[in-house]
Amino acid sequence: MKLRYALGDVLRELRLEKKFTLRQLSVKAGVSLGYLSEIERGSKEISSELLSSIAKAIEVPLHQIIIETGHRIQMSSLDTYESVERELTVAI
Amino acid sequence: MKLRYALGDVLRELRLEKKFTLRQLSVKAGVSLGYLSEIERGSKEISSELLSSIAKAIEVPLHQIIIETGHRIQMSSLDTYESVERELTVAI
Repeated sequence: MKLRYALGDVLRELRLEKKFTLRQLSVKAGVSLGYLSEIERGSKEISSELLSSIAKAIEVPLHQIIIETGHRIQMSSLDTYESVERELTVAI
Repeated sequence: MKLRYALGDVLRELRLEKKFTLRQLSVKAGVSLGYLSEIERGSKEISSELLSSIAKAIEVPLHQIIIETGHRIQMSSLDTYESVERELTVAI
């Protein structure tokens, strides 16, 4: 899983947990709604400054977002590995 | 500590652990030496694609770099908190 997709997923989940709509968060973090939506979908890069603003706006420590993103990538790598393993087992 | 600085520190330490010079890594990861150096100093943003290329070049899983960066930010936030606490203690 690409970093951008993992980070986008984590940001969207945290936003929903914190009960923000895209519009509310875009206003609070000072970013356009369209751009925020693209970040969550993993189709746009995010600057470290904007990531900090979003973290502050949803009141989640920046390190928590980063660490969760790392774990998300790790789990997804394990999943990929397991699928490959399953395919190999079936092939054998 | 800003994300960019934390990530730059982690990347520099991993590069040195893996015994790469800036020049060697810049060639292997397909990035200019100057840009790589600025990334390590935290003065330039890095795209998720380039971060993946660097991770691959130094043979460290991407999630490990991300998680270490998160912990670095966390430790640094704790340090800041502790310094403030120490200052308060002295002030009292």
